[in-house]
Amino acid sequence: MVDAAIEKGTAHREAVFETFARRLPGARRYGVVAGTGRLVEAITRFRFRDEELSWLADAQIVRPATIDWLADYRFSGDVWGYREGEVYFPGSPVLVVQSSFAEGVVLETLVLSMLNYDSAVANAATRMVTAAAGRPLAEMGSRRAHEEAAVAAARAAYIAGFGATSNLEAGRTWGIPTMGTAAHAFTLLHDSEEDAFRAQVAALGSGTTLLVDTYDIPTAIETAVRVAGTGLGAVRLDSGDLPTLVVEVREQLDSLGAVGTKITVTNDLDEYAIAGLSGSPVDSYGVGTSLVTGSGAPAAGMVYKLVAHRDDAGDWVSVAKASADKVSLGGRKRAYRRFDGGVASAEVVRTSPTAEARTDERELLTPLLVGGEPMEDVLGATGVERARAHRESAVGELPAAAFRLTRGEPALPTLYE
Amino acid sequence: MVDAAIEKGTAHREAVFETFARRLPGARRYGVVAGTGRLVEAITRFRFRDEELSWLADAQIVRPATIDWLADYRFSGDVWGYREGEVYFPGSPVLVVQSSFAEGVVLETLVLSMLNYDSAVANAATRMVTAAAGRPLAEMGSRRAHEEAAVAAARAAYIAGFGATSNLEAGRTWGIPTMGTAAHAFTLLHDSEEDAFRAQVAALGSGTTLLVDTYDIPTAIETAVRVAGTGLGAVRLDSGDLPTLVVEVREQLDSLGAVGTKITVTNDLDEYAIAGLSGSPVDSYGVGTSLVTGSGAPAAGMVYKLVAHRDDAGDWVSVAKASADKVSLGGRKRAYRRFDGGVASAEVVRTSPTAEARTDERELLTPLLVGGEPMEDVLGATGVERARAHRESAVGELPAAAFRLTRGEPALPTLYE
Repeated sequence: MVDAAIEKGTAHREAVFETFARRLPGARRYGVVAGTGRLVEAITRFRFRDEELSWLADAQIVRPATIDWLADYRFSGDVWGYREGEVYFPGSPVLVVQSSFAEGVVLETLVLSMLNYDSAVANAATRMVTAAAGRPLAEMGSRRAHEEAAVAAARAAYIAGFGATSNLEAGRTWGIPTMGTAAHAFTLLHDSEEDAFRAQVAALGSGTTLLVDTYDIPTAIETAVRVAGTGLGAVRLDSGDLPTLVVEVREQLDSLGAVGTKITVTNDLDEYAIAGLSGSPVDSYGVGTSLVTGSGAPAAGMVYKLVAHRDDAGDWVSVAKASADKVSLGGRKRAYRRFDGGVASAEVVRTSPTAEARTDERELLTPLLVGGEPMEDVLGATGVERARAHRESAVGELPAAAFRLTRGEPALPTLYE
Repeated sequence: MVDAAIEKGTAHREAVFETFARRLPGARRYGVVAGTGRLVEAITRFRFRDEELSWLADAQIVRPATIDWLADYRFSGDVWGYREGEVYFPGSPVLVVQSSFAEGVVLETLVLSMLNYDSAVANAATRMVTAAAGRPLAEMGSRRAHEEAAVAAARAAYIAGFGATSNLEAGRTWGIPTMGTAAHAFTLLHDSEEDAFRAQVAALGSGTTLLVDTYDIPTAIETAVRVAGTGLGAVRLDSGDLPTLVVEVREQLDSLGAVGTKITVTNDLDEYAIAGLSGSPVDSYGVGTSLVTGSGAPAAGMVYKLVAHRDDAGDWVSVAKASADKVSLGGRKRAYRRFDGGVASAEVVRTSPTAEARTDERELLTPLLVGGEPMEDVLGATGVERARAHRESAVGELPAAAFRLTRGEPALPTLYE
């Protein structure tokens, strides 16, 4: 597209691209935007390196004029977006890119890859946080996602309210609290379960979490308390019928005097299994597969669409696909959350270039890059902490219907004005 | 675990870890191993850099002795695995790692991340290839996967029989054929659909593929053939009711004399939609979301388990988790595919250390790394082409029941002998 538009002379027309979701996958009640901070960093360092340019030239993917243009690529436009951690609904313009057509169209895959994956994880995570009703959640899904996606998943889960991750690289890169646990392999390596528990307690202290379901669970719990004392931090269960099992484990721990020892469970949990354990004496949850794969909706389904461009006379033209089932609304959007008595009541999208927030509305789009320069406060660990705080605040504004785990309509209507 | 095992003195016990799937997600009939070549490359360059070591030390994740051990980390063990592209079933030992406990346990997340993601994509792709019944398939899902996962997805899809990818980085890195197409944005950028088509044909020739569903489809097709001539390469449809629409489009193209112009469709396809179009005049398919997210099974569900280790006397001890619902079989496995009249009839797993293939069996495990050194033929673009050829051959050995798209039992039983 860039190649043909350079040839045609239309590549440098000023253009506006918008990212939005046509619907909330899984018929969920709201979404949580994630990936924005990672995206802003990626846009600022988006370049075509020599080895990439030579390959494009050698493979004759594009012509020399386009190679020259790519060699100088540096995004110089403006980007607005929903704050990371913000709630979104169908049609919410979560990201708006204004630049030349060519500068903006080149970013399409980067924008969508990051926002679709990270938001898919955040969308699942925020429901698990609701289901856990205040009990801590740890992200433990790295092994069920691509090795780099795993780091992004840990970041998105933390933004959506998880308390920690087992992904150390996410701790190092994004400042997310990390935790760990022993696997069955650690118990199996040693000559006895007792040997393994002694080794772990010697290395990590009695506050550690011992995995008690390698062999016989009651025996393991007796051994664990004997080895670590009644000050044992926690036991972990990774198999079995959890609602029944945790009651038995709690009773046994209490009977051994380990009344402060916690129970953490990690057996293929999703938001429904977590909700199903709400009446059981579980102290914390570790979630893997379902979290990093979006719990049934592994991509957020966002699209990146040209909504306006200038013509040769310099006038703005609103544009949109008009045929069949994927009709879009042209023109650059402004977005607002409307409130009624302190509770969010509608998502309002306006196409007027002079639109402003009413007194009962909160403006949703904020600048992320201006003339290609990033807003510092969305970057790095600072951006992650701000996003986490913003998600908590934005979710707190939603009506009660937003927290149903059942399939249904979005919790707020999207109004086009 | 490494920290505690170093402290205890058990870290250096020789150990065998095996990777396998307890079941085929989605109740599919067979799986396709992918990610092996990427994994072998990743293992050979797996190191802990200074910035990672300092973080681990500063955050007091592990103790100084472990930092020292990590600083020298270089995998020096042996790895056997199913050939990339090989078919697998529940219990198939698709990867076997033999090394010290510490060297092997550190690789767990890397191994599982790569094999679980890449195999999930290959598992979906191989079903789409079956459904397409010889028509070409292109991978176009980058925007619906994490930005690095997208490259791996393109690679896995090609191994499983897709013909091309829209991901240029996958073309550059892995030698996979690339293709591209114009988006609605390209049409919308121009002052008219005709302008856009003229620009594309001027840049790419009349053999290009024109996207005809931005406005009115019959008008677009008339314009496309007028602009490009009856030698127009193809038209693309990305919306609408495809079974009906493609018939109408074929009739219109033929009536305009563009009898050689192909029809490619790309509207949220999965294996079922592709199968549903088998009687329609579609020439090729572009598949995105469902492919890169594993079409309902976004992680292959493989696990990495310690199955044997030496004790202090140097004797091998077979080990396995024994409690509750996740029972495993201890001891290092050998694996064979058994044939009956040229058709695969069983997956045979043997724990005997002296096991050999019977004359009606094909051995499945091959060396991937020996003493930490990789087998060259699994690496890079060569490895990808070998994997693609092997998948075609291995799938060709399967009984007809393997190609049902319905949920059901694995096409072969797994026999433990």
